Amino acid sequence: MDSATCLAIARQAGVDCYGLSFDYGQKHGAELDAARAIAGSVGISEHRILHLGLGELGGSALTDRRIEVPETPTEGIPTTYVPARNTVFLALALGWAEIIEADEIYLGVNAIDYSGYPDCRPDYIAAFQKMADLATSRAVQGNPVLIKTPLIDLTKAEIIQWGTELGVDYALTVSCYQADEHGRACGVCDACRLRCKGFKEAGLVDPTRYWGRTDK
Amino acid sequence: MDSATCLAIARQAGVDCYGLSFDYGQKHGAELDAARAIAGSVGISEHRILHLGLGELGGSALTDRRIEVPETPTEGIPTTYVPARNTVFLALALGWAEIIEADEIYLGVNAIDYSGYPDCRPDYIAAFQKMADLATSRAVQGNPVLIKTPLIDLTKAEIIQWGTELGVDYALTVSCYQADEHGRACGVCDACRLRCKGFKEAGLVDPTRYWGRTDK
Repeated sequence: MDSATCLAIARQAGVDCYGLSFDYGQKHGAELDAARAIAGSVGISEHRILHLGLGELGGSALTDRRIEVPETPTEGIPTTYVPARNTVFLALALGWAEIIEADEIYLGVNAIDYSGYPDCRPDYIAAFQKMADLATSRAVQGNPVLIKTPLIDLTKAEIIQWGTELGVDYALTVSCYQADEHGRACGVCDACRLRCKGFKEAGLVDPTRYWGRTDK
Repeated sequence: MDSATCLAIARQAGVDCYGLSFDYGQKHGAELDAARAIAGSVGISEHRILHLGLGELGGSALTDRRIEVPETPTEGIPTTYVPARNTVFLALALGWAEIIEADEIYLGVNAIDYSGYPDCRPDYIAAFQKMADLATSRAVQGNPVLIKTPLIDLTKAEIIQWGTELGVDYALTVSCYQADEHGRACGVCDACRLRCKGFKEAGLVDPTRYWGRTDK
């Protein structure tokens, strides 16, 4: 949902877009199928799915089958936190941006209606930017890649409203941490709860298909 | 050479060591064979080789077969620069450190006798540390992972001298950008030149096996 909205925002700004998704060992492939469908539906210049051994390292309910996705709200940083995930994703995006000469990286993090992940907060993003300003060949030449996070200060409802205005088809998007092979959501994980609440607060119909709860 | 020396320094300091190597699409596998041999010879707790689609992105003489490794000194940042490579490696090491509860990441970068890569410089490492201090769950809890770069201010000769004192078997190490399948070096790439110069300046016998030049 956040990535699809970011893509729509970038396209609205007239940006020539290249999409980067990660097959990092997440338990389900539904979000990658969704990424392909979204990229295909809007027609971006290129969509890459990068294979990444992050899941082999374990340590998260999103990649380790021995750790269950929590279905009730938890205190603190949840087990769905993937250690250093956004740092790894941004690092690879930074490398690809330098190769294809892209000037900006759009990232759909947000720090309001979110799961408490440390690598979604504005001060983390600012620190990554400072590091990126020193990390690459083009940065040394005075032309760093810019990290854009247009959703970072928005609630889920505001994100959905903005995306809806831009024509995002949220029926194509998958947020659920344990979606089934048809992209249907559980309705009870943290990601489902935030998404569901967002549609309610935005006063918009939630097009999510669920396999789990029937009382949505 | 630098990684093997770092490992010896960490072991000398009494650190329980876990090794992380990357199969990122580099043209030759000799450096991974060398990493396995070194890890095996000193007996570390675990050695992981992580698969990574970085090379699929192209853009470097180390990963793209259409770009030749330069065999004479070049001005500025050379074509062997891999966009954002140390950022990607450090990001994955940061994730693994959090998973295995390692307190430090040792990285063998150096900024004296080096190839001019931006992501080997002290200010880059300091910026990565600041970002890492905000990126992870354990950092938020006041216990960030520390990046250690004991070689960063040393010449190659100083590195070799220190490593030799610590018993590093440099015959096991591979620095060459275009080593053959037996781990033999070309003798003419940037990495070979720096290594060769280091042994000469240290006044030590260079145990490197070469397939290329015979006038070493």
